[in-house]
Amino acid sequence: MSVLPNWTRYVHHDSSERYLSNPLPDIGETITVRIRVSSEADIRALYLRSRPDGEWRRIRMTKSDSDQYYDWWSAELPIIMHHNNYCFHFLTEAGSFYFNQFGISPVDSPDWFNFTVLGDYDAPLWVREQVFYQIFPERFANGDPANDRQTGEPTLMGQPVIKREWGALPHPFEEARNVDYFGGDLQGITCNLDYLEDLGVTAIYLNPIFDAETNHFYLVRDFNRIADCLGGDDALRDLRRAMRERDMKLILDFTPNHIGFHHPWVLAAKDDPDCQSGQYFYRHPDTGEIESWLGVKYLAKLNYNSHQLRGLIYRDPDSSMRKWLRPPYSIDGYRLDVANMTGNFWHTQCDSEVWRDMRAAIKEENPGAYMMGEFFQDSSAHLQGDELDASMNYQGFNTPVRRWLGKGDHGVPQNEPFGDRNPLPTEYLALQWRQYLTAIPYAIALQQFNQIGSHDISRPLRVADGDRDLLKAGTALLMGFPGTPCIYYGDEIGLDGGHDPDNRRCMPWDEREWDQDLRAFHQKLIGIRKRSDALKNGGFQVLHAEGDLIAFQRQSLAEQLIVVAFRGADGTPAVKLDMVLANIADGRTLTDLLGGEQYVVEDGSLRLEDLRHGQTLFLRAD
Amino acid sequence: MSVLPNWTRYVHHDSSERYLSNPLPDIGETITVRIRVSSEADIRALYLRSRPDGEWRRIRMTKSDSDQYYDWWSAELPIIMHHNNYCFHFLTEAGSFYFNQFGISPVDSPDWFNFTVLGDYDAPLWVREQVFYQIFPERFANGDPANDRQTGEPTLMGQPVIKREWGALPHPFEEARNVDYFGGDLQGITCNLDYLEDLGVTAIYLNPIFDAETNHFYLVRDFNRIADCLGGDDALRDLRRAMRERDMKLILDFTPNHIGFHHPWVLAAKDDPDCQSGQYFYRHPDTGEIESWLGVKYLAKLNYNSHQLRGLIYRDPDSSMRKWLRPPYSIDGYRLDVANMTGNFWHTQCDSEVWRDMRAAIKEENPGAYMMGEFFQDSSAHLQGDELDASMNYQGFNTPVRRWLGKGDHGVPQNEPFGDRNPLPTEYLALQWRQYLTAIPYAIALQQFNQIGSHDISRPLRVADGDRDLLKAGTALLMGFPGTPCIYYGDEIGLDGGHDPDNRRCMPWDEREWDQDLRAFHQKLIGIRKRSDALKNGGFQVLHAEGDLIAFQRQSLAEQLIVVAFRGADGTPAVKLDMVLANIADGRTLTDLLGGEQYVVEDGSLRLEDLRHGQTLFLRAD
Repeated sequence: MSVLPNWTRYVHHDSSERYLSNPLPDIGETITVRIRVSSEADIRALYLRSRPDGEWRRIRMTKSDSDQYYDWWSAELPIIMHHNNYCFHFLTEAGSFYFNQFGISPVDSPDWFNFTVLGDYDAPLWVREQVFYQIFPERFANGDPANDRQTGEPTLMGQPVIKREWGALPHPFEEARNVDYFGGDLQGITCNLDYLEDLGVTAIYLNPIFDAETNHFYLVRDFNRIADCLGGDDALRDLRRAMRERDMKLILDFTPNHIGFHHPWVLAAKDDPDCQSGQYFYRHPDTGEIESWLGVKYLAKLNYNSHQLRGLIYRDPDSSMRKWLRPPYSIDGYRLDVANMTGNFWHTQCDSEVWRDMRAAIKEENPGAYMMGEFFQDSSAHLQGDELDASMNYQGFNTPVRRWLGKGDHGVPQNEPFGDRNPLPTEYLALQWRQYLTAIPYAIALQQFNQIGSHDISRPLRVADGDRDLLKAGTALLMGFPGTPCIYYGDEIGLDGGHDPDNRRCMPWDEREWDQDLRAFHQKLIGIRKRSDALKNGGFQVLHAEGDLIAFQRQSLAEQLIVVAFRGADGTPAVKLDMVLANIADGRTLTDLLGGEQYVVEDGSLRLEDLRHGQTLFLRAD
Repeated sequence: MSVLPNWTRYVHHDSSERYLSNPLPDIGETITVRIRVSSEADIRALYLRSRPDGEWRRIRMTKSDSDQYYDWWSAELPIIMHHNNYCFHFLTEAGSFYFNQFGISPVDSPDWFNFTVLGDYDAPLWVREQVFYQIFPERFANGDPANDRQTGEPTLMGQPVIKREWGALPHPFEEARNVDYFGGDLQGITCNLDYLEDLGVTAIYLNPIFDAETNHFYLVRDFNRIADCLGGDDALRDLRRAMRERDMKLILDFTPNHIGFHHPWVLAAKDDPDCQSGQYFYRHPDTGEIESWLGVKYLAKLNYNSHQLRGLIYRDPDSSMRKWLRPPYSIDGYRLDVANMTGNFWHTQCDSEVWRDMRAAIKEENPGAYMMGEFFQDSSAHLQGDELDASMNYQGFNTPVRRWLGKGDHGVPQNEPFGDRNPLPTEYLALQWRQYLTAIPYAIALQQFNQIGSHDISRPLRVADGDRDLLKAGTALLMGFPGTPCIYYGDEIGLDGGHDPDNRRCMPWDEREWDQDLRAFHQKLIGIRKRSDALKNGGFQVLHAEGDLIAFQRQSLAEQLIVVAFRGADGTPAVKLDMVLANIADGRTLTDLLGGEQYVVEDGSLRLEDLRHGQTLFLRAD
């Protein structure tokens, strides 16, 4: 590639509050768009280019301010549509340059690359404030042994229930077929809220709790009832009451894609294809059998061509999804299981239609409800403001971070031999982040659901091959990256485990089994995250992505913070971070919120030396 | 960026017939997907990854063949949906690599980057076979002086008609307000079909001919009538009859976005907002006035929220768009004016809905009809197989090529000072092509409507600053690039002109005014294009994009062709093209279809020396 002029490295804009006077405008509003451009740039004219009603509109920007390294240019942008993309067009003596969310280039790029600001988008802003904690209910704590399932009880899976001692290891699927139970329940969560509050988390994402078969409760029999062995409806009511006192939020796991084959709808339709629930399913063209999900014979794929089904699931006043959004449960949103496939089957690819339709119903019930979908794949088509609020951000965060930590596998689902054991070069960690951030509006990125561990992938400690320093680096990235962080239960005390179901081990309650140092690190990080306006609302700019060091800036109106994570060996030569990129002047100090050390900017850079393996810094500009 | 292993440069796949056993499969069909990979690649496993129903499916590929430089891997891909994206996942000792339409990378990319094969897509395959010729009817030829408009006739524009002599220059808009007429008409085209046939073109794209105000006929008064001064309905019938005898195709220019303010619908709605046509328009919220298009007070923006309007335009059995698809006119498709804005107005952004709806009607009338939209902007959202068949490919071809030729402006519309006078670096010509090819299915790319000149931009000769050698290079790229080429009338004989309306000068019929060399060059190129299976149906691979030389390969099952264009000075040092990239073995010869010279491949490369400024080569592997 031809070399770009040096000033092109020194241009920054993101669709955060520092660069948009209102990042969440109403339609009809006019906002100010700002960009900072190296004062060395040789600009003849600078245009903000948007596409109202599909036509380009170029608005000439004016230089409104200057500081030590940069000129600030601004223009007024009228917001007339829901989905507004924009980029910046530089006219210079050296030619035209286009700056979009992916970067700067002499050529114009497809709209996909551009910045986006949503109009009339009712963001669930509370999500940014949270630190989530994911609980697999059967394995967190046993609050009421009286409701435990007992060895020998019959199950759908053929094999009867196996009751195990708390702390024993889950047996592989081939052996236990997910009907080994340890007794965890909602009461166990309620009576351990002190633990969660002490850790600092503010919201819980619960894996499924509806009446269902197997210990993961994904084979749902009744969306309108909480499973007896988890405590039933009353236990959820009590949990919510206790959580409300602590101002904690809760989202539940809902499976719109499929139900268990023991669900009454399936049983009725099996006997009589013409019965009411017959239309809720697809049928095999040859055999006439009800289609299962990906060939899993216990799960019946739901058919959203049926408007009656849509009614029962989310649309009707007494639909299942509405029920739990109402008192006394008043949950704060849903994690939508297998969102990538919901509504999709051969010719019928109606996922987007289902999400828009479901969104209308859910937001009618609670405008702030969070709709977050499970996607191991690209989810950006559904994150444009009119379908889902967020996805489990495997591709945009989790997978590349695990590959970067990557001594072990990189977290692809079990039984799939696609991992590789080569840690991802840091440049490519930044590239994958950039690609997925480019794919969605930044207002959505700030509420993406980020994790480094979940019930579907091996424990992050396993990925880090037991290296707790590396695990800390991963956790720091989790707390620093745009989006809401979620800790998978037990990761904070060093719970280990390979693929499903080994990643669903019992939470140990004997504190001697805890890694107290790791837990204290989590507490400290969570505290930093909760107090940091920049981490919750700020923009995002990568400052350094080379060798073993990644550094990025988060900046809101109120705060400027640089997050650094280092995976290299102790004793690596000093690294200089470019403070011109960050726009922090010589002589200013930055304080590491983790370690307390102060750093002074000199000669346009910040010198980091004696970095320890796995070290992370949260450097706040004073 | 970390250096990628060398073999990663030597991977190729595109969604053409050489790599897909059927590039246009039915849903339910299983196709073979092939990829060629350097035999030096250190592959542990290679997967074809698709996303049926939204879920990843990884299909292990097997090595099915080998040749001098490459291994060919293949896998069977069941097509179960309309829009199928796929990529390739390499597992090597050096880690994972993902290969998609944009390139190869150690990280996984959003679906936008992936290859696409459409299922059940009824491609208008005839389009690939054509060489189009765009005619601005009022300026091509005067076949019947009896129908000419005469000086002094009143017009909507306030200013009366000015009749000018054939060959005089159009006056600027400020002066003549587009009511200066020269007398061109459909009869003038009919009686010059010999000229077109001699040139070699096979299809005509006509600018608007419906009853309308101004010399460009975009201010339509009646979609159901051909303008009298162009010869009326009978002249179109006669033109079609004459064209059919020569097996020539015709597409008309239709303006679904707006109509003239003198259209009866507007007149009625102005008088009585509650009349039937009142709903066809938007009203200003304050003044209640009918909204015009982009403030052009002569053009009323149409409102497709009205289903009655949809009926009249395209849906009803006697709709305007259906009329011209039927005998005796039987046109072959439409160019849709201002397609970028049609259906879009503030909250109402229903362009995609209109295109899908219009597509159903048009294809019902004629399944092979070509629906091609005007977009100066990115059009890829509408080119996914269910809306438009093609767009005027300004961004994907025209604009970057003009910037590459670019001694003058780079062809942005008039009155917009956004050009730059720096020729685009060749790397970025290739990058812009790549970005826009990545954005659409390759089956669509093969029927994109490519031009280097049109009625909306300055003449390519003007862009080349009068340099006819450069113009030839641009024309060669037009004939070589994937998609159907279209020559703007007169470009072939060296007609000059700046921005609109200077780009709409009269076609000179005195042959002494023609650049005969340029015309012969066009004839030769058109002949090559029409006879070349590779240019019509082949894949696309850039081989060289450095300095002043661009070279790419087009390869079908039957033919392998390398297109070279050179914009540098005479006497530039020899350039070597990498024939390993092209997969052409040492000792093989290539023949330049233009000049007849033969070249022999040696040491894995093709040596090009003594290149002349503006020289182009069409090298066919013998």
